[in-house]
Amino acid sequence: MHEPKLQSAAHDIAFVLDKLGVGEALTRLVPYRELDTATLVQVVDEAARFAREVLAPLNAVGDREGCTWRDGEVRTPAGFADAYRQYRDAGWPSLPCDPSLGGQGLPVVAQVAVQELTAGANLAWTMYPGILHGAYECVHRFGSEALRETWLGPLVSGDWLATMALTEPGAGSDLGQIRTRAEWLDEASGTVRVTGEKIFISGGEQDLTPNIVHLVLARTPQAPAGSGGLSLFLVPKVLAGGERNAVHCTGIEHKMGIRGSATCSMAFEGAIGYLVGQPHRGLEAMFAMMNSARLHVGASGVGLAQQACEMAERHANERVQSRVPGAPAGAPIARHPAVWRLLEGQRVAVEGARLLLYRAALAIDESHHADSASARAQADALAALLTPVVKAMSTEQAFHGASAALQVFGGYGYVEETGIAQYLRDARIPMIYEGTNEIQAIDLMLRKIARDDGAVLRQWLAWARAQAAEARMLPGLDGFGAAMAVLDEGVTMLPQIVALTQSSPRAALCVAGEMMRVVHGLSLAGLWAQAALAEHRVAASGQSAHDGKRRAARHWLKFELPETRRALAIVAAQILDPETAE
Amino acid sequence: MHEPKLQSAAHDIAFVLDKLGVGEALTRLVPYRELDTATLVQVVDEAARFAREVLAPLNAVGDREGCTWRDGEVRTPAGFADAYRQYRDAGWPSLPCDPSLGGQGLPVVAQVAVQELTAGANLAWTMYPGILHGAYECVHRFGSEALRETWLGPLVSGDWLATMALTEPGAGSDLGQIRTRAEWLDEASGTVRVTGEKIFISGGEQDLTPNIVHLVLARTPQAPAGSGGLSLFLVPKVLAGGERNAVHCTGIEHKMGIRGSATCSMAFEGAIGYLVGQPHRGLEAMFAMMNSARLHVGASGVGLAQQACEMAERHANERVQSRVPGAPAGAPIARHPAVWRLLEGQRVAVEGARLLLYRAALAIDESHHADSASARAQADALAALLTPVVKAMSTEQAFHGASAALQVFGGYGYVEETGIAQYLRDARIPMIYEGTNEIQAIDLMLRKIARDDGAVLRQWLAWARAQAAEARMLPGLDGFGAAMAVLDEGVTMLPQIVALTQSSPRAALCVAGEMMRVVHGLSLAGLWAQAALAEHRVAASGQSAHDGKRRAARHWLKFELPETRRALAIVAAQILDPETAE
Repeated sequence: MHEPKLQSAAHDIAFVLDKLGVGEALTRLVPYRELDTATLVQVVDEAARFAREVLAPLNAVGDREGCTWRDGEVRTPAGFADAYRQYRDAGWPSLPCDPSLGGQGLPVVAQVAVQELTAGANLAWTMYPGILHGAYECVHRFGSEALRETWLGPLVSGDWLATMALTEPGAGSDLGQIRTRAEWLDEASGTVRVTGEKIFISGGEQDLTPNIVHLVLARTPQAPAGSGGLSLFLVPKVLAGGERNAVHCTGIEHKMGIRGSATCSMAFEGAIGYLVGQPHRGLEAMFAMMNSARLHVGASGVGLAQQACEMAERHANERVQSRVPGAPAGAPIARHPAVWRLLEGQRVAVEGARLLLYRAALAIDESHHADSASARAQADALAALLTPVVKAMSTEQAFHGASAALQVFGGYGYVEETGIAQYLRDARIPMIYEGTNEIQAIDLMLRKIARDDGAVLRQWLAWARAQAAEARMLPGLDGFGAAMAVLDEGVTMLPQIVALTQSSPRAALCVAGEMMRVVHGLSLAGLWAQAALAEHRVAASGQSAHDGKRRAARHWLKFELPETRRALAIVAAQILDPETAE
Repeated sequence: MHEPKLQSAAHDIAFVLDKLGVGEALTRLVPYRELDTATLVQVVDEAARFAREVLAPLNAVGDREGCTWRDGEVRTPAGFADAYRQYRDAGWPSLPCDPSLGGQGLPVVAQVAVQELTAGANLAWTMYPGILHGAYECVHRFGSEALRETWLGPLVSGDWLATMALTEPGAGSDLGQIRTRAEWLDEASGTVRVTGEKIFISGGEQDLTPNIVHLVLARTPQAPAGSGGLSLFLVPKVLAGGERNAVHCTGIEHKMGIRGSATCSMAFEGAIGYLVGQPHRGLEAMFAMMNSARLHVGASGVGLAQQACEMAERHANERVQSRVPGAPAGAPIARHPAVWRLLEGQRVAVEGARLLLYRAALAIDESHHADSASARAQADALAALLTPVVKAMSTEQAFHGASAALQVFGGYGYVEETGIAQYLRDARIPMIYEGTNEIQAIDLMLRKIARDDGAVLRQWLAWARAQAAEARMLPGLDGFGAAMAVLDEGVTMLPQIVALTQSSPRAALCVAGEMMRVVHGLSLAGLWAQAALAEHRVAASGQSAHDGKRRAARHWLKFELPETRRALAIVAAQILDPETAE
């Protein structure tokens, strides 16, 4: 049985915080003036320790036992509730919350690191507190004073957990189909009775906390049809007075993975609820949660990919087979070129995904706290651009990386006892939840690129090109010249793809997935250049620099840049000859 | 619960047999002079019926129940044994066997179709008879007359099943490490006592047949070290006299998928065995089985990919969500561009994989029965070239196609009851067994390309280029011009990659996976051209031609040819700047 050790994750996050300058960038924001990078690295190390010592040993148990449902109650796997108590007692839920509310006021960057490490060790368990921060933000930003007073405290402390209750049997990607009704009990205070059925609610019922705060999308009487008629309600399991509310778990799903996470069907039977934000503006409040949630899903993807990669590396360094071409007898299979490619490909993909993840997280912190309104708006636009890319591409990497890791184990990987098969099964769901990866691609194409005629993307690519131009001067890295050529092609194509979204939206959407890959690849060109330059500067200053970023950048240019060209060629072909089915 | 219906698989196999001319090519071989295509199509339809009516309903049951082991006995899931009796009684085991031994003497092409259809409906069940034909071939070709007399009959009739017992805890891809010993009881008759431990033996124990014929690789005393010292032995579960032999199942694996297939650990404790072929030439006899086995694994991949694709298509045509851009309200999600891409991509991949599969199967039939020795040798070389490509690329498509199909189901796909998650889990193993896909790539690079300086590949690509040159004249298919350019690049690169295998084998092996993709893509360029031309000819003759091959070829050129360019660019970069790790 291989358990994740989180050996190199914390080390590589420290590179991003320290040598890549994310920590320093944070100190330019008013609330984080005093936050030195060493403190951040300490938080990361502590989270890695918790993930390694408490969560990782429960990962296989949770998969084996799964959750059980009986008469509306859900039992989580042995050890899950205790691990949550330790998590709460250590103060992890309050990490990113407002200090005035008892929070620790740490940046999104830190919260994302915690998510990456805990999800990497145990995704099923991490689902339970997974939505806590989003719920906190949602109530904090949109809730009335009365709501905030009652419900925010226990969310900050983590005494209670939360859910996002959107999906219904007939309403998945298309929230406009939601049928759950909210009838006014007291319109002035925003109190309603909620009636309807929700499905796929993670942690809708559990035995970790005595109360659960559901954030529910529902439709008030006379509300317009479609998604513009939805309002958001806070529906607690237990009301403030201590009475049980009329919301019940009617069953849990038998899933391919994250079996330790209870995926609940919920019946709201006239349950008391409280309006959050404005009537009919539920989607807006929900999306405030959704963006944070999507970045967290991306962080989970990085964490899963990292751990799968580490497990494969350990196995490949232990397993000896004699026939490794060009290697001495008794060499481990890690030295076999085919295995080396599998391992190196994963390692470079994970580290690249991490560069992108923390850039997006930093942009969110900047969007909240930068000095000027224009700087905040600019950061917000960059975060909005990168979030769907992080969500989709990191989760894809988690799945494909876990599959590559399983391949390194060979037949042993297919046997459940080894543990890597669970990573593959668990990693399949983040590609679907919080908006499928196809929804992410559409969001990127229509809302993040076309809506501003590609302005934000163009600015981001100009930064990437400048990084590549500087990095190509480094020894062995003239391959960034080719990356610059691809960046230039991408920029040239931009007005054409924007035009296609107007002349033939269906044709444009047919290549939304490829456009996602183009933006991903061009972003990584800039980020790998930045990382190589950072490492070079550290080395030039006489410090030891063994982060392998220049080597990884070379690998990426040679083996991964052609993938960006592939996607670009398909988008270009579609622009030349727009085609849609039916 | 979605069960495979095998609706379009049989139809598309009929296209390959009839309109693409595989059936006609078979009639040019002496044993198949009288075999008309209509008969072949009838066999395919009958196999599809059996798969649909008998095997498909047991697929989910087998996954849910799995196998159970107790005191050396294995119980297969409910219904499996009965389904096997029906399969045997219908005469399926004897399909490709020699008529003089009671076989039906049908070509490999027909056998491959049966494999595709049964594996697509129920891979776990299909594992049991999966090795039967390979064992038959092995004993038929290499066994002594005495062995053939005793053991061949029940293998032809299917009264007994067979296994291939290669893998040991310390010997997977590297068979040279095998430690199982064979001590001579009677060297003249080739009788031994076999002692050792084998793992991952599919159907090593089961309750389908009263006897099981194990083909075991083991080492005789004084045999040279490494794989050149291995001999092959037939070790039956029950000896000819009716006594139980000293071979026992010590446990079964708990696997991620194909849970209805018993994957056994076997203890040989001085079990009586009989030499098959020459001493120390076990690998040669084993590889005669292995090539047939690899083509069958490829056929399984096509079958799984086909069924996953059909399940996704049915769901996408049933599920209605309102927000399909440019489509009327109430349109099914199949009309959404993102879903259309997922479905169309799978459909084209499956049909392309089928073109390649049956081309390789035909080459095997030609290698056995063509008129001249040179024609047989040429066909044999083509079959050897294409087999690793079929094995690796079809199984990869099965896994990635099942993942794409699951994505079409969204959250429902992740719930086991829907059935598509089982396809994803089942489809993960064919990428590993019968030689991992990395082993296939190495085999292709070193044994199939480098060994003859690329001569066979060059000839095959010349055929592909001629097809593309003709097809590019068809309306809407001038995209084959681009395919010709890629073919030319590939041919130009050939001597360079061959040279690299000599100057730096490790550097060459680093891009073996990409070379596999290059050969796959260039092969498909020719095969899609051939299919488009065939459909065009049918249409020009006034018959209705609704096979969609020209449309699929256009799709492939636009969306898939860039992948071949990607792989080619990586191989080219490695030739220019050969690099290996460590």
